[in-house]
Amino acid sequence: MPSLITLTTDFGTRDAYVAAMKGTIASIHRDVTFIDISHDIDPQDVMQAAFVLRGAVPYFPEGTIHLVVVDPGVGTERRAVGVRDGSQYFVGPDNGLLTLALAPDEPDHIVQLDKPEFWRAGSPSATFHGRDIFAPVAAHLAAGRTLDDVGTPVDKLSTLHWALPTIDEHGIQGWVVHVDHFGNCITNISRQAFEELRDGRGIKCFAGGAILHAVHPVYASVADGDPLAIFNSDGFLEISVNGGDASSLLGIRKGAPVNVVFSRS
Amino acid sequence: MPSLITLTTDFGTRDAYVAAMKGTIASIHRDVTFIDISHDIDPQDVMQAAFVLRGAVPYFPEGTIHLVVVDPGVGTERRAVGVRDGSQYFVGPDNGLLTLALAPDEPDHIVQLDKPEFWRAGSPSATFHGRDIFAPVAAHLAAGRTLDDVGTPVDKLSTLHWALPTIDEHGIQGWVVHVDHFGNCITNISRQAFEELRDGRGIKCFAGGAILHAVHPVYASVADGDPLAIFNSDGFLEISVNGGDASSLLGIRKGAPVNVVFSRS
Amino acid sequence: MPSLITLTTDFGTRDAYVAAMKGTIASIHRDVTFIDISHDIDPQDVMQAAFVLRGAVPYFPEGTIHLVVVDPGVGTERRAVGVRDGSQYFVGPDNGLLTLALAPDEPDHIVQLDKPEFWRAGSPSATFHGRDIFAPVAAHLAAGRTLDDVGTPVDKLSTLHWALPTIDEHGIQGWVVHVDHFGNCITNISRQAFEELRDGRGIKCFAGGAILHAVHPVYASVADGDPLAIFNSDGFLEISVNGGDASSLLGIRKGAPVNVVFSRS
Repeated sequence: MPSLITLTTDFGTRDAYVAAMKGTIASIHRDVTFIDISHDIDPQDVMQAAFVLRGAVPYFPEGTIHLVVVDPGVGTERRAVGVRDGSQYFVGPDNGLLTLALAPDEPDHIVQLDKPEFWRAGSPSATFHGRDIFAPVAAHLAAGRTLDDVGTPVDKLSTLHWALPTIDEHGIQGWVVHVDHFGNCITNISRQAFEELRDGRGIKCFAGGAILHAVHPVYASVADGDPLAIFNSDGFLEISVNGGDASSLLGIRKGAPVNVVFSRS
Repeated sequence: MPSLITLTTDFGTRDAYVAAMKGTIASIHRDVTFIDISHDIDPQDVMQAAFVLRGAVPYFPEGTIHLVVVDPGVGTERRAVGVRDGSQYFVGPDNGLLTLALAPDEPDHIVQLDKPEFWRAGSPSATFHGRDIFAPVAAHLAAGRTLDDVGTPVDKLSTLHWALPTIDEHGIQGWVVHVDHFGNCITNISRQAFEELRDGRGIKCFAGGAILHAVHPVYASVADGDPLAIFNSDGFLEISVNGGDASSLLGIRKGAPVNVVFSRS
Repeated sequence: MPSLITLTTDFGTRDAYVAAMKGTIASIHRDVTFIDISHDIDPQDVMQAAFVLRGAVPYFPEGTIHLVVVDPGVGTERRAVGVRDGSQYFVGPDNGLLTLALAPDEPDHIVQLDKPEFWRAGSPSATFHGRDIFAPVAAHLAAGRTLDDVGTPVDKLSTLHWALPTIDEHGIQGWVVHVDHFGNCITNISRQAFEELRDGRGIKCFAGGAILHAVHPVYASVADGDPLAIFNSDGFLEISVNGGDASSLLGIRKGAPVNVVFSRS
């Protein structure tokens, strides 16, 4: 069975960069199935990459190797790491991205990639560790090497934190953490926190230009072009417009506040 | 030999949605080759998806499974279906898209996907049947299940119709049904209808700002930057500009009329 | 082991064109791994395609087949060719692209694709040789046919030349040959030519609105938002902005001059 390697980068699709990584991998280990998660991460947006990665990883099988290269600090002293979380593997720069993507899990095993014999021959370029370090290491893992073969165990990853919603008895203030391709505005308010706090009360949800009085089960619960609140397929509150682009229609961008107020009346 | 699964969606390439479907499939059946047809269908544009799918399906081998998820009605009562047409398979929502893509064929076998044991474990989300129903069913078909294993036979698909050109003895009025990446404007006027009606007469073709007096065999039949009419590789009349973008240069959008007038003089 | 076929086109990702080629290949020879190099080459930009292909080819393994279809002259008398360079294969129109991509190498073997029995059945369309000639030939090569099976040997490819920098004792005048997804402006000035001529002298590098006095080893050598000159991972001088888009921030486009002046003071 071929090994499964996913790729998540901010490299775009106009240049040779993604193909150079895949060719490098195929030159070391041919029996690989590549699955692109996204190469359209905004340049150097570590949080966005972590958000997208989180949305894909739970659906992948045991043994999948995730190559994740959003690397503003390439060539500096930030570490290169390989990580195992449960039965899946991650290879990339240690810049907080992997902590965000795996949160609230702590990874089961972390190694610093410090063994140049598993990198591309010749010294790595200072600008493209994706091709020269991370892709070769992913290929060697696919070929059966262990994390301890390709690196040296370390204790912790660099840490970034997701901003959490502010919660009090009256409601929840969250933020839009991602605007998707359809213009859906996905918040950091989980269905679980929402339902626990709500306790049967009515709601008002303030988001951009909209005030919403219910959370609907499907987009088509409201008329075409009307806004709605809905829990998305990963269990987070999402502000949407049925058949439309909520971000542009309601004037909501990434980082915008979303306020939910609960009341008995 | 790995199974071949194609994907056609309006999910874009910035989010985790496509990868979540592929991971779900690989978790059920690993030995799959994925081929993306397009994920850049305009949001919820069922006709555009059908047009693009039609341009790809004839070139795929027997047994190919086409996963087609453009699904404005996700979570409503529109049915989920699996279809066999000749030797190829289709999985997606029953919203008219598949009827358009297969027209004028009637599919050989249709099942309603009503067996949750072939879906992702847990109840399906109300917003992402692509991941929770269609991808798992495609994976089970790839693994050797039959349509009758994963659903219950039904008689008919939901029906949408392509607008057909208006034809009289003087000529043909058609429409632009697709503007491609190059700006080529592809009409619904087939070479066959055109040649039968023309019967050796001269032509005038009115399209946007251009009046064309011939159908040319290759783009380079006219000077760089000049407009031309040509039959495209699927046998439909196309309005193009040699080396340029006909849509923007001639002011032609999807839905614009294209009039062909035949005359003896 | 599956054969490896890469694809480089200007077809974009909205239409069925790329999938029609892959389906055609899979219909002839199923055991193929497809790797997309890019489908976002600017329409008919042969030089850009050659630049991107050059950035990928060195990283691919022996036996890789590169299908390259940027074809402004489709349907005219430009030849269709298959090429071997070292252990890799190239299939596409003979319009100078392959000469540019392989330069300064001369290919080891060239054939004109003149054997319709290896094309798609029926006469090829006049507008889509990618699907009707090049994809089938690539599939037959993947299935074990030789270049001499699918074509007739010829001596030379059509020739285009890269513009070379102008060099005198005082410095180097080069050009921006590619602006990448990040806005990095990649010039035709090689590290080797630069270092030989520099001979320990100081530098001034004039590029768009910036005057740079050093070549830095990593992007993070300068403050966030500051411009820098750096040698990229393929060994060419690149004008960048740390954490930003040099092309838009410095007003530099493809084709813009970059002047390097060396001085003792």
